[in-house]
Amino acid sequence: MTVTADRDVRITVLGGIDADVRTNGFDHFTAVEISAVDARAVTCQVSTDLGDIIAMRTALLAEGPFDAPLVESHAARCSATLALRAGEPITVEKRIAVTASRDLVPTTPEDQLALAEALSYEALLAEHAAVWAQWWNTCDVEIDGDTASQLAMRVSLYHLLRAHVPSDPRVAIDAKGYAGEAYMGRYFWDTEMYLVPFFLYTDPAKARTLVDFRLNTLPGAQRNAASYGYPGARFPWESDAAGNECTPLWQYRDHEIHVTADVAYAMAHYAAATDPGYVAQAATALVEMARYWQARIDWRSGEDAPCLLGVMGRDEYTPLSSNNAYTNRMVAFAMDLAARAGAQGGATPEECAAFRHIADTLPVLRTPDGLVLQCEEFSQYPEPQFDRLWADRAKPFAAQVSQERIYRSKCLKQADVLMLMLLFPQEFTDDEVRQAWEAYVPYTTHDSSLSAGAHAIIATRLGLMDAAWAFWQQSSRLDLDTAHGGAAEGIHIAACGVNWQIAVQGFAGMRTALQAETLTLHPCLPQQWTRLAFPLVWHGRQVSVELTHENCTVTNASEIPLPVNVSDESRIIAPGGRHTFTTVITRGQVHSWNAHGNQTGTKRASTSLIGGDMTASCWACGARRRRVRRL
Amino acid sequence: MTVTADRDVRITVLGGIDADVRTNGFDHFTAVEISAVDARAVTCQVSTDLGDIIAMRTALLAEGPFDAPLVESHAARCSATLALRAGEPITVEKRIAVTASRDLVPTTPEDQLALAEALSYEALLAEHAAVWAQWWNTCDVEIDGDTASQLAMRVSLYHLLRAHVPSDPRVAIDAKGYAGEAYMGRYFWDTEMYLVPFFLYTDPAKARTLVDFRLNTLPGAQRNAASYGYPGARFPWESDAAGNECTPLWQYRDHEIHVTADVAYAMAHYAAATDPGYVAQAATALVEMARYWQARIDWRSGEDAPCLLGVMGRDEYTPLSSNNAYTNRMVAFAMDLAARAGAQGGATPEECAAFRHIADTLPVLRTPDGLVLQCEEFSQYPEPQFDRLWADRAKPFAAQVSQERIYRSKCLKQADVLMLMLLFPQEFTDDEVRQAWEAYVPYTTHDSSLSAGAHAIIATRLGLMDAAWAFWQQSSRLDLDTAHGGAAEGIHIAACGVNWQIAVQGFAGMRTALQAETLTLHPCLPQQWTRLAFPLVWHGRQVSVELTHENCTVTNASEIPLPVNVSDESRIIAPGGRHTFTTVITRGQVHSWNAHGNQTGTKRASTSLIGGDMTASCWACGARRRRVRRL
Repeated sequence: MTVTADRDVRITVLGGIDADVRTNGFDHFTAVEISAVDARAVTCQVSTDLGDIIAMRTALLAEGPFDAPLVESHAARCSATLALRAGEPITVEKRIAVTASRDLVPTTPEDQLALAEALSYEALLAEHAAVWAQWWNTCDVEIDGDTASQLAMRVSLYHLLRAHVPSDPRVAIDAKGYAGEAYMGRYFWDTEMYLVPFFLYTDPAKARTLVDFRLNTLPGAQRNAASYGYPGARFPWESDAAGNECTPLWQYRDHEIHVTADVAYAMAHYAAATDPGYVAQAATALVEMARYWQARIDWRSGEDAPCLLGVMGRDEYTPLSSNNAYTNRMVAFAMDLAARAGAQGGATPEECAAFRHIADTLPVLRTPDGLVLQCEEFSQYPEPQFDRLWADRAKPFAAQVSQERIYRSKCLKQADVLMLMLLFPQEFTDDEVRQAWEAYVPYTTHDSSLSAGAHAIIATRLGLMDAAWAFWQQSSRLDLDTAHGGAAEGIHIAACGVNWQIAVQGFAGMRTALQAETLTLHPCLPQQWTRLAFPLVWHGRQVSVELTHENCTVTNASEIPLPVNVSDESRIIAPGGRHTFTTVITRGQVHSWNAHGNQTGTKRASTSLIGGDMTASCWACGARRRRVRRL
Repeated sequence: MTVTADRDVRITVLGGIDADVRTNGFDHFTAVEISAVDARAVTCQVSTDLGDIIAMRTALLAEGPFDAPLVESHAARCSATLALRAGEPITVEKRIAVTASRDLVPTTPEDQLALAEALSYEALLAEHAAVWAQWWNTCDVEIDGDTASQLAMRVSLYHLLRAHVPSDPRVAIDAKGYAGEAYMGRYFWDTEMYLVPFFLYTDPAKARTLVDFRLNTLPGAQRNAASYGYPGARFPWESDAAGNECTPLWQYRDHEIHVTADVAYAMAHYAAATDPGYVAQAATALVEMARYWQARIDWRSGEDAPCLLGVMGRDEYTPLSSNNAYTNRMVAFAMDLAARAGAQGGATPEECAAFRHIADTLPVLRTPDGLVLQCEEFSQYPEPQFDRLWADRAKPFAAQVSQERIYRSKCLKQADVLMLMLLFPQEFTDDEVRQAWEAYVPYTTHDSSLSAGAHAIIATRLGLMDAAWAFWQQSSRLDLDTAHGGAAEGIHIAACGVNWQIAVQGFAGMRTALQAETLTLHPCLPQQWTRLAFPLVWHGRQVSVELTHENCTVTNASEIPLPVNVSDESRIIAPGGRHTFTTVITRGQVHSWNAHGNQTGTKRASTSLIGGDMTASCWACGARRRRVRRL
């Protein structure tokens, strides 16, 4: 801080540590030791109720003279009096070092501060800026044509970069991105679905800590399964860092079980995008999850197919539903994976066969005219009467009607069937996706912050560019405008990840590594943007993509040839080379997927995604079309 | 207290008031004023957090000498030192007077104590005994042949007599009979279903305060409806004395809505048994309840019948179910009543027509082979796997499996369809009841303390006397044996009422006033009993009934002739007269109800139950067979 006065004046500057901190109203410090080191420095060490110790030391770098430090029970401050002369600036620095017993490389704040004191302010700033510049290089998304979009995107990226704890798989990223106290800093399925993809395609080592977090908390998931009377592992709906189930409300805690399949999906995603060997590392966890599912499955008398009952799907407004399509498909995915990796994870051949049978037979329900049913009950609910009951559309539907009514009405909090179609696009034709869009969107409240993003991406598939744009606006403004909720309770960090997905998976149309072996783009830029550019990591290769309305340039910055498919045109780009594809997109005309699952015009993919023993199957549908039961 | 010593000795006796009281861990006293009046008396006045004031005064009557009283912040005690001489008894009395700001006749503890002091201990005891003797005369059930049954029955009757607050319709009887802190002293539907009948047929003025309690808390029910966005009145699942909804868990609070129909049923029951004019007094409440139901009803597209969705029925193990048979039938009953009484309660003719339409069309679902379905979902649940999961049958099923599993399994906490058949026996043939028994009993855990009683009564209808006896044993021992739960958390007061019902409505086979205009008995005494005798009030007439295995003697102690039907034999018993009916019951052969609803061999009843305008309808089924929809 540099101060300049227009006259001679004396200023007292206080700098110190205040340990009187509350989180959600609670003081989590079981002990606070605070003291002055000397007139220029104070130190503080706190113990937390989880047994961690955090030590801090701060020094005030100023000319002085310094008064005696003020030391209270929970605070200490140094005090310097600056004698300013008119027009002569004086600079004060406060340097602080923080260490914790959890640090991966143990150190002391004294050592840290000593290191820092040897450097100038400019050198420290440069060091800081270099780290951030490197981070930005991995992921910056450039948007031309709409500065508001560019700003919103960079806000999302900033928070994603900020919230990730580098190299530390003992934690993931909590629901508020460590920027608010809501949800008590707990981890949700958001991690797997909305944060892993961003890091996986920009800085895979960061994605690794997130998937490893679930491996590390496998014992918690095992305890959780046991607490319900199940074998295996059941990941918590709300997890603390130790993997304990912390969800306060039973309908989510007991019934929103898809998280355990989402975890398996993210492990497969990591393996497919980065390191096929990861499946072997995760095999024990995959088998433990499958054992839970095997026990959680129900078999109704008179039916030869398994079913999943008492399930809250992604649409949290339909609680305790039967055969939720999204959950069933995700569980089938997880069981398929466990059947393949089972031997490595300690499963017997009989177990693997049972996993396989469930994977093959767990149904995705459809109506007689082919509509994928969110669940058995959905069509039995009465109309939600939005016109009568949802007076103020600027506020959530749930803020205007009772939960009791929501729980028996045909209304959705967020995408459910459409999210299934987003994750498994190969299994549904464009017509089927459009049918689901027309059936479910009118009933969707988008009360969840995650709803708009999924809809934006699906809209690009359907060529509904106005809708895609509107949903992009809604999702990207979420934490910026108070009209969209604001960030008072912390950042919607999963929505930050979704915003990246809208640009990269939606407008640039990138297939994920679970959806395509080859880097595949189907660009569909919104009218409001003139250019979209972003870096990617594809199977370890550094790639950059630049889009306009006319063409798409892909640069292969790696030392390995890169096969690329853009708008159904395939090329192999040499190391260090680039290719510009022509991408004239007529509004409403977009890529399509054939009924079997793969893209139109491409052959049935048969390359490995996960491991050597998986090459025999179609990546699109696990070697067979999903079992469909018509109601 | 009289003390005798075998040698000369001095004894200090302390007597006072301790106001350091916790209820469920909380101190509900906002102010405590405690002091000594003199050496022999202390006084205490406390204010509660609900704004009531309770004043107490206690005096120690002893020879002395008295020490100075001990007065602390929350307690005060008198202290007398007795000089006992060997073999010479000394008597000490402690008298206490309690008054409260809620007292119906305001007084002071000083006045109360002054009144008491003028009387001897023997006179006070006699006064107390006289009140109790009068109470016992209204209801004592004599059982010969099994002293354990006699004891258990009297324990139940004692608690019912003790728990009722005479003449005070500002309170009902809380779930633990004011004998424990569980459920925080709140009122449930138990009042209407299990306590009102006992008082209605033994001491109708006491039943009146219970039904009036709901009229008094109508404003709370209206607030409750409004809080959910509904018009009218929605009685709370757990009510405090002010009628506020206090249920902590949302699945009960939001979805176990049958209580509002149970309240209407109890009002009709009171009117039918005692005072037909009560319907007019309750008309406003009946209309308000009907307005709530009208708004709570759903209309599915493509169906012309209404439905009730998101309902937890009496079987609390099937949450959020659709068209629960019990609830639908009870709501139809309430709507029928409101349609009839609506004009007196301020309903427009259009409203009454709408109530009537719902009453006529709300379905009771059946399977193709005629089984009454508990709800639409029930048959879709998988088997509960009791053999595998319910290891210790001495403990509740719910204590051995997770709620999550219970909520998606074919298992019942208590009678649901069978309770419907118990309340509306005329609407179901014996074959239909037996079909329901065979379908549901194997899935019923009887985890609820109320389950055994309902099953005992239904078993007598089906002639399943072994089952009836076993369920009687289970219900009657509930608060006596620790194996059956014990009374650690307070008395199961509703089960006390059920125990009376098993004897009177089960083994003596009494029809309620909603089920028969004439006093009707179908005795079916268990083998283990040789005699059963009890008093009754039937339409204002004092009656006594005495049963053996061979015959049944009914005494008309009133001044009006009493028509009686015992085992299908009808007589009119003159005032002061009696008649002995022959009742040779072959095990397994019991009374039956015809398909239309009334008893075999009796004509279609057409007498009034409730009011003059209701005479035109069949009491059995509201003039028409219930709408039945087959799935």
